Amino acid sequence: MKNSKYSAMWLEYHKVSDLETRYSLKVEGFSRDDRIITSAAHELSLGLKKMTGIELILSDAAEGSRSLTIKKDLSVRPEGYILKGDGENVQILASDERGALYGAFALLRAVACGRDVSAIDESASPSNPLRMMNHWDNMDGSIERGYSGESFFFENDDMIIDDRTRAYARFMASIAINGVVINNVNVKGAATYLITDRFFAKVKELSEIFADYGIRLYLSLNFAAPIELGGLEGCDPLDEKVIGWWKDKIREVYDNLPDFGGFLVKADSEGRPGPFTYGRTQADGANMLADIIKPYGGIIIWRCFVYNCTQDWRDTKTDRARAGYDYFKPQDGDYHENVILQIKNGPMDFQIREPVSPLLGGLHKTNQMLEVQVAQEYTGHQIDLCYLIPLYKEVLDFHTCSGEERDTVADYVSGRTMGNTLGGMAAVINTGNDFNWTGDDLAAANTYGFGRLAYDTTLTAEQIAREWIAQTFALDREHEDILADMLLRSREVYEKYTCPLGIGWMVYPNTHYGPSVDGYEYSRWGTYHRADHLGIGVDRSDKGTGYAQQYYPENADRYNDPKTCPEELLLFFHHIPYTWKLSTGKTLIQHIYDSHFEGYDEAEDLAKAWDSLKDVIPQESFDRVKERFDLQLDNAREWRDQVNSYFYRKSGIEDEKGRTIY
Amino acid sequence: MKNSKYSAMWLEYHKVSDLETRYSLKVEGFSRDDRIITSAAHELSLGLKKMTGIELILSDAAEGSRSLTIKKDLSVRPEGYILKGDGENVQILASDERGALYGAFALLRAVACGRDVSAIDESASPSNPLRMMNHWDNMDGSIERGYSGESFFFENDDMIIDDRTRAYARFMASIAINGVVINNVNVKGAATYLITDRFFAKVKELSEIFADYGIRLYLSLNFAAPIELGGLEGCDPLDEKVIGWWKDKIREVYDNLPDFGGFLVKADSEGRPGPFTYGRTQADGANMLADIIKPYGGIIIWRCFVYNCTQDWRDTKTDRARAGYDYFKPQDGDYHENVILQIKNGPMDFQIREPVSPLLGGLHKTNQMLEVQVAQEYTGHQIDLCYLIPLYKEVLDFHTCSGEERDTVADYVSGRTMGNTLGGMAAVINTGNDFNWTGDDLAAANTYGFGRLAYDTTLTAEQIAREWIAQTFALDREHEDILADMLLRSREVYEKYTCPLGIGWMVYPNTHYGPSVDGYEYSRWGTYHRADHLGIGVDRSDKGTGYAQQYYPENADRYNDPKTCPEELLLFFHHIPYTWKLSTGKTLIQHIYDSHFEGYDEAEDLAKAWDSLKDVIPQESFDRVKERFDLQLDNAREWRDQVNSYFYRKSGIEDEKGRTIY
Repeated sequence: MKNSKYSAMWLEYHKVSDLETRYSLKVEGFSRDDRIITSAAHELSLGLKKMTGIELILSDAAEGSRSLTIKKDLSVRPEGYILKGDGENVQILASDERGALYGAFALLRAVACGRDVSAIDESASPSNPLRMMNHWDNMDGSIERGYSGESFFFENDDMIIDDRTRAYARFMASIAINGVVINNVNVKGAATYLITDRFFAKVKELSEIFADYGIRLYLSLNFAAPIELGGLEGCDPLDEKVIGWWKDKIREVYDNLPDFGGFLVKADSEGRPGPFTYGRTQADGANMLADIIKPYGGIIIWRCFVYNCTQDWRDTKTDRARAGYDYFKPQDGDYHENVILQIKNGPMDFQIREPVSPLLGGLHKTNQMLEVQVAQEYTGHQIDLCYLIPLYKEVLDFHTCSGEERDTVADYVSGRTMGNTLGGMAAVINTGNDFNWTGDDLAAANTYGFGRLAYDTTLTAEQIAREWIAQTFALDREHEDILADMLLRSREVYEKYTCPLGIGWMVYPNTHYGPSVDGYEYSRWGTYHRADHLGIGVDRSDKGTGYAQQYYPENADRYNDPKTCPEELLLFFHHIPYTWKLSTGKTLIQHIYDSHFEGYDEAEDLAKAWDSLKDVIPQESFDRVKERFDLQLDNAREWRDQVNSYFYRKSGIEDEKGRTIY
Repeated sequence: MKNSKYSAMWLEYHKVSDLETRYSLKVEGFSRDDRIITSAAHELSLGLKKMTGIELILSDAAEGSRSLTIKKDLSVRPEGYILKGDGENVQILASDERGALYGAFALLRAVACGRDVSAIDESASPSNPLRMMNHWDNMDGSIERGYSGESFFFENDDMIIDDRTRAYARFMASIAINGVVINNVNVKGAATYLITDRFFAKVKELSEIFADYGIRLYLSLNFAAPIELGGLEGCDPLDEKVIGWWKDKIREVYDNLPDFGGFLVKADSEGRPGPFTYGRTQADGANMLADIIKPYGGIIIWRCFVYNCTQDWRDTKTDRARAGYDYFKPQDGDYHENVILQIKNGPMDFQIREPVSPLLGGLHKTNQMLEVQVAQEYTGHQIDLCYLIPLYKEVLDFHTCSGEERDTVADYVSGRTMGNTLGGMAAVINTGNDFNWTGDDLAAANTYGFGRLAYDTTLTAEQIAREWIAQTFALDREHEDILADMLLRSREVYEKYTCPLGIGWMVYPNTHYGPSVDGYEYSRWGTYHRADHLGIGVDRSDKGTGYAQQYYPENADRYNDPKTCPEELLLFFHHIPYTWKLSTGKTLIQHIYDSHFEGYDEAEDLAKAWDSLKDVIPQESFDRVKERFDLQLDNAREWRDQVNSYFYRKSGIEDEKGRTIY
């Protein structure tokens, strides 16, 4: 159901001063009529007017008034900007239009954050070449793992283009997103036809709006399209008929969509078709498409989420965590230069705590992109507060110990380690057609934060939180501190009341919300905790599945030994007795009890902290979030009591503090 | 999706001889044109021709040929019949048309079972006044807990009347069903409008077809109809406006449907509206409707499935098993004479093993009807073989120990104990529009068996099984023995590999198929096993929830003490340590292990037994059932391994026989 009302999220442009002066807006070196420059100028006019009362006069003529100049400067790095104020006049310097647009948003952000921009001196350029949003939107309007209403791109197997489309593009540009995949990676039904006449006109119209904001449109691709659209008998990537079909198809796509970015492909994954069906490698599949799309400047982004999803739970040798590395590492170096492998941050699937995927940096001859999930699938459905930027930071800062000087994940995906130019970060986005776009108003901090972090991986989680708060709510320092603290604590709180020490998966099957300790224990998904009356955890050491050995030696050794393994990942790597002593001196079982009691109490603290903001948050926003906290407390209580009861009933070990366990 | 092809199930009328003679069919005392007599004559002609080659000549004229006479005899009990053969001529005696029809089917059954009917001497009359089928069919065509395709009564919010309708009525008449509720007890959407002009014409058309076979049509009723149809603000049963609305409505119903049977009502149950909303008793609600419908000869069947379905799992005082008795016993005697309380066989919900509901016979001043479930919701989805007649027999034969001479459940529901005339048995039916009507061909034994047992509660499960086999497959004795043995063993096999000793509920939530030991353990449904590392079971003794005390003293005492409690119900009534010694000398935990290993092995035996029938069962039927057995074995293996692993991991106690547990 279409919902035409929507909030301004972090582009509210709250009033910070009331100057009622005029600035002339000058454009030097760029075409004033360029679509992106036009967007930048429009945004500056709107934002400055609303925040400061300043009126921008679009004029190159010197009128004696102060000036704001967007100026081309080829010394600035691609998509970067320099903001310079001399106390009177302000310049936005950039070598390209995107940089100018990002500079404009940066200037507006500085104003919103209360900085004196007349003397601003700031520069930035992107850490990552590609900064992408992946929508899991289906053409019937549903969103896979969507918690914010329906799609605003699709409904009833057709496309929607309306006011929301441009509003969305503005949000994305403001956080320097330069690529968007609009449709679900599980491409079925009508979505297969997005690369046909049926939809070209509308896709083009959408891509034009994106282009106004420096965003390239990408599509998820159905690897079986030669069968479903072309009537071929198979989709073997080495079959000349298949190759010929794709050549024609991709020519047709670019005839209709000249600025098209390329394809995201989920192949041989969770029932999706792929090269394995024909005895081909993933590289065979990716390279075939990449070679065909290369002349048009397109790229192929190939997901590494390949694993056996029909595992027998009795089988303790097979380890889903191993699958990505086992499948993709052997072809490292075989992927062509316009292929990027898109790798989820952890080896499993977006749990609240996982080790970093050993493929990240484990591949060292292949373009790679880090995939994170802003949509809170396993992290609270945008009901429970869970600010995810600290998690993304941990992943980016992780030292692969590959022996390279630049050995962090951030180094690898940015291209700094290998000197490659295709790489970056992608997020499964959390938006929908809810009024507030993200279900929970506070979940927009993740949307915002992902873009900001992808552009500048050196930003701290706190800096990003404060930026977002200032732009969204314009709180005074005291209240900003409260909300920033809520955000920064929230992930640890969620972790405490849900799954202990990296074990993950104790969720209700299918929905992935709410506790079900054994929910996945006897399933086909390769996601087990192996708890018995003596202990819990999966032995992934060299005595177990050997997963730990997929890391470079320094990390492999650290993970391999429960004494050196980081405790927050202890149960991911080892099967540990309940009586094991942790570094705190507590036993494992006591830690489980304590963290679940603490987690609930801290969730209550979060809810109370929100209550303390009642007078400074707009009423409707306050009420929406308060409703979410009520639900979060119900959820946290169920987690606390079910997990504690489960382990108490299983271990028979009493809580030292004698609290109620059922 | 409409499916116009269908099997003849047990009315196949296999050839048993080839006489090529003629009989004259005479009708004496009945009108030859009566709709039911016409059906009987038609069925005799069809069946005898197909089975024996005998041609029936409908003629009262003596032609010298042998005769088959349908004759009115007022000494025969209502709906009963006498079959008499003098070696040449055969008579079907009955005092009413239904009795004549049932006699005709009985004669055909005798032929199919290979008996010499020329000298037949048999009489029967119904044990129960009401013998009803309850369809849980929705008007969109779906069937709640349906495992045999879609509805053949409804699709797309409209009614279907076609060849299947009459075929269905024939099946029901052949097993002496005299009432059918065509729509789901959860009355929503279009179904609320079944008592309006929108559907009167079609309901009447359907009821006419039913009437040809002696079946009265009943409807499930939406207690909130005065709001939804009448626009009233409430549906308080004591509100004059509500009463007035119902008076008008029921007059309208009978104006349009003169032969209408009455209403089945699910009120205040699992979210359905009801009298409790207005602070009224269930009796207030039922009596209001009953008083209004009485002048028309209608009845109100009021379900007793009322319980708190939002229980906190932490709460060990509330006991769902108690709810029916707690809610309905206090008004025993308050219900008016055309109200029947319909009571599920057990206090929970159609588990593979439950004690008999203490309401059955616990009420002794109220009409009561026993409700069983032929649809295999918790008993294998018509995939796993589970012949349920032995279960129904146990319930019927249960001595309530009420102190009455006639104290069994069969005595109470038949009216024998209290001398009342409204009562009987109802089944949630297992049919759909699958070709074979029941998903699994063998599940038709339950459909057939329910009707036969409701008509004659003294029949044994084996007699019924053999009747059904003879009519359906016409096997020789050796093969009939094999199939009868399969049916008779199947319930115990299913019980062995699923939930031990009456505990129930270890199913996958929502679907109710496949194991999930903790699936309902932390839910709101009041269905818990309370397993910990030392033991399992729910204490429903006087030291626990007190449920056992709802029975008459002799049963209460027996259930109250784990030493005298029947072992198959031990965990329903008691929390028992794994080390408890059962009467076999085995510990409880060893019993759990053994019964699950045995259950799987015995399921394999069933599948092998079916294989041995390959040459004597029609190919398509054989293949359909074989597919089901393949699925059953997968299911049984999961049950075996998950339940055993669950208890092994929880108790830490090894299997004495050292078999593989995970």
